[in-house]
Amino acid sequence: MKFFKASILFFSLICSTVLFSQTDEAMFKNIYKASLTNGKSYDWLNYLSNQIGSRLSGSLGAERAVAWAKEELEKVGLDKVWLQPVMVPKWVRGAKEYAYIKSSEGKTTTVNICALGGSVATPALGLKAKVVEVHNFEELEALGKAQVEGKIVFYNRPMQADLIQTFEAYGGCVNQRYQGALEAIKYGAIGVIVRSMNLRLDDLPHTGSMTYGDLPIGKRIPSAAISTNDAELLSTMLKLDPSIEFFFRQNCKQFKDVLSYNVIGEITGSEFPNEYMVVGGHLDSWDLGDGSHDDGAGVVQSMEVLRLLKELGIKPKRSIRVVLFMNEENGLRGGTKYAEEAKQKGEKHLFALESDAGGFTPRGFSFDCTDAVFNQVLGWRHLFKPYLIHFFEKGGSGADVGPLKTNTNVLAGLRPDSQRYFDHHHASNDTFDAVNKRELELGAATMTALVYLFDKYGVNNVMALKN
Amino acid sequence: MKFFKASILFFSLICSTVLFSQTDEAMFKNIYKASLTNGKSYDWLNYLSNQIGSRLSGSLGAERAVAWAKEELEKVGLDKVWLQPVMVPKWVRGAKEYAYIKSSEGKTTTVNICALGGSVATPALGLKAKVVEVHNFEELEALGKAQVEGKIVFYNRPMQADLIQTFEAYGGCVNQRYQGALEAIKYGAIGVIVRSMNLRLDDLPHTGSMTYGDLPIGKRIPSAAISTNDAELLSTMLKLDPSIEFFFRQNCKQFKDVLSYNVIGEITGSEFPNEYMVVGGHLDSWDLGDGSHDDGAGVVQSMEVLRLLKELGIKPKRSIRVVLFMNEENGLRGGTKYAEEAKQKGEKHLFALESDAGGFTPRGFSFDCTDAVFNQVLGWRHLFKPYLIHFFEKGGSGADVGPLKTNTNVLAGLRPDSQRYFDHHHASNDTFDAVNKRELELGAATMTALVYLFDKYGVNNVMALKN
Repeated sequence: MKFFKASILFFSLICSTVLFSQTDEAMFKNIYKASLTNGKSYDWLNYLSNQIGSRLSGSLGAERAVAWAKEELEKVGLDKVWLQPVMVPKWVRGAKEYAYIKSSEGKTTTVNICALGGSVATPALGLKAKVVEVHNFEELEALGKAQVEGKIVFYNRPMQADLIQTFEAYGGCVNQRYQGALEAIKYGAIGVIVRSMNLRLDDLPHTGSMTYGDLPIGKRIPSAAISTNDAELLSTMLKLDPSIEFFFRQNCKQFKDVLSYNVIGEITGSEFPNEYMVVGGHLDSWDLGDGSHDDGAGVVQSMEVLRLLKELGIKPKRSIRVVLFMNEENGLRGGTKYAEEAKQKGEKHLFALESDAGGFTPRGFSFDCTDAVFNQVLGWRHLFKPYLIHFFEKGGSGADVGPLKTNTNVLAGLRPDSQRYFDHHHASNDTFDAVNKRELELGAATMTALVYLFDKYGVNNVMALKN
Repeated sequence: MKFFKASILFFSLICSTVLFSQTDEAMFKNIYKASLTNGKSYDWLNYLSNQIGSRLSGSLGAERAVAWAKEELEKVGLDKVWLQPVMVPKWVRGAKEYAYIKSSEGKTTTVNICALGGSVATPALGLKAKVVEVHNFEELEALGKAQVEGKIVFYNRPMQADLIQTFEAYGGCVNQRYQGALEAIKYGAIGVIVRSMNLRLDDLPHTGSMTYGDLPIGKRIPSAAISTNDAELLSTMLKLDPSIEFFFRQNCKQFKDVLSYNVIGEITGSEFPNEYMVVGGHLDSWDLGDGSHDDGAGVVQSMEVLRLLKELGIKPKRSIRVVLFMNEENGLRGGTKYAEEAKQKGEKHLFALESDAGGFTPRGFSFDCTDAVFNQVLGWRHLFKPYLIHFFEKGGSGADVGPLKTNTNVLAGLRPDSQRYFDHHHASNDTFDAVNKRELELGAATMTALVYLFDKYGVNNVMALKN
């Protein structure tokens, strides 16, 4: 009798697995087909990139992007679409920067720089000083005040080319850009030039955020990124002639915070409307290109997830939200605000997925979750295999969804192929033409498939079955 | 005693596995690092693409590419470098093609076409006729002589966008291009226009090989590819006005076969010099772009495999050959010749790997081999995982190495990400700027790693251990 019961249980488990599994396979097929043959993500990105353009927090572009995204989400026919107010910093680059290297004989060579986001301006007529090159903060400390004071510190540690995941190479370098000025100020430096975070040698400077901590305005020194080609040039010239001078001029300015918005759309859950699942990217971008990869791609892919669910007639059990976060690049105010309000309202967020690593061919996801949930995900691998999604690892998710983390929920990040990302990241060539339609659409479909599974099976389902 | 012996055996197996495994991991690291930080593949491709350019069999470009490749391989310091003579077809496009659609009111619209490789010319003043649109040979047959005779057949079946592996979408369409004329001739057609094999909508016609079987010259009809945008236009205009005419002019010509060469380099094996392993790509390309992806990438990656082995001081047990095949695109004479001579000389070819799917991020390999060898490969998966190489499937290898197949050897094909491949394939935008340095270098390293393993462990090793 016991055996009989067990057999029935086993048999029903097999049946339901096969049944579920067939349904899921069919649904995956529908999702990818809809995205690849009749998707909206590429057209949306075309508009966002080419008709709106760059969208730095507080800019007209950001304002227009908010209005556009709300309008487009309303057209999709979601249950709710709204704007969540959030105060954001407003930093403006001003006129194009100008810089040159001056040899000790007085010959000048123009180089390509751009102010780092948040930097102060140089004096109106520019800043000229001798240069010390360092590769890390230890070298800077070793030089000390004696050799740094009154000079420009030139950080020139390149991204490590033999790291396969380029975000690791970025992680290994970005402290030069973010904290470089703060460290250099300790030793009396009067300016900072940072090698662009770029694995290629080319002529484009790459901007990005930097910090002065809580130093008073009077102590802050101007900071700029220099193209990788010009970083090589400056380094070579310094070796030949340590007394060369570097001149740069930038008139960027930090204004008072201004009002902006996260754009949110929701399909309300049919069974558990008070359980929330978020998919998102950030609507703001740096000001040099049009932010197509960073993070226009994540924005339109996230919008596409909800549009695909609607188009395919999937009625989620849980409430699925698309959140287009404002101000990821220089403040994370949008992500912080969304999580704060969710907490205040006691909204239970089970799951949040961010796409903020470019619109390249999706390779998989990284998950910030318990082992039990990760095992649940591994059980879904076979569903993703026909779509060449193989990468499932534990790790970070995305900056904007980060503040939603609890002990039990799941944060995830889409992981596209990263080889080309830093060719464009925060530079003037982060533009629509650098995004491939199919690669973008595959990402949107892959995100939709994961959202579909977590909505259908919930979080921690595997453990529930075992208990 | 038996237990004791078994334990020792088990212990030594574990030890040797761990030992081997550590060594292999370190070697993989060296291989990828050397390719990504100090590789030659990208510089080589720059020269081949931008200083030599397109290399259709029998062209001056092909001749220069042969001389260049031989010279570069000699610089690498291989044990032997030589040219293998092979007679190849010589087809010349001639002046740029010209085509227009003429409405029944006499208005003309210019469209973008290119002659298919091997096609005959139109009459010197061009060819003008009414058009019938079909999507496959069944539709053509159904129309029959009554509706086809004296007309131009327009094949307009698009590549299927929801197939994830784009080579499958290509496989599902390419019979229109290859056999389209042969089929249309049966029903009295006087010309053929084929929708370009391209997943995007753009203005570029994509050439490629076509056949007339053994039809006499007098029966052959001119065939051309039309850009996807213009295929859409032609289709729309036909629906509005079935009596429109299509005009095209091309003056391509097939000449007598000419002498060319496969370029071969070898590192002679230290233990089994008479066992051969081949790595290769094809040196010829179509004439419209500069053949950077098809197959400049495969050429320089294959050269880089042997260079990396040398640079890293790996002395292979078996003889490793790089073979740069001539005439893959319109005849496969090089691949056929190489296999014929190998057979005549009784050379035992254990393994052959081809790279001919573009210089994009490598995803893995497909293997044409026994289940035993495939299991051997699967045992190596963990070594490739840190390099994000996940795709190991049984399947085809490459056209050039195909003729080397035996019952016991291993043929393999590098499988890069395929999403962008057909944007460039056989078109004027298959150019150097479309190749990413890191993606190309990762492919070369991945190939080197596989060659290293097969050389070290041999083929069928797993079965040998079991026996």
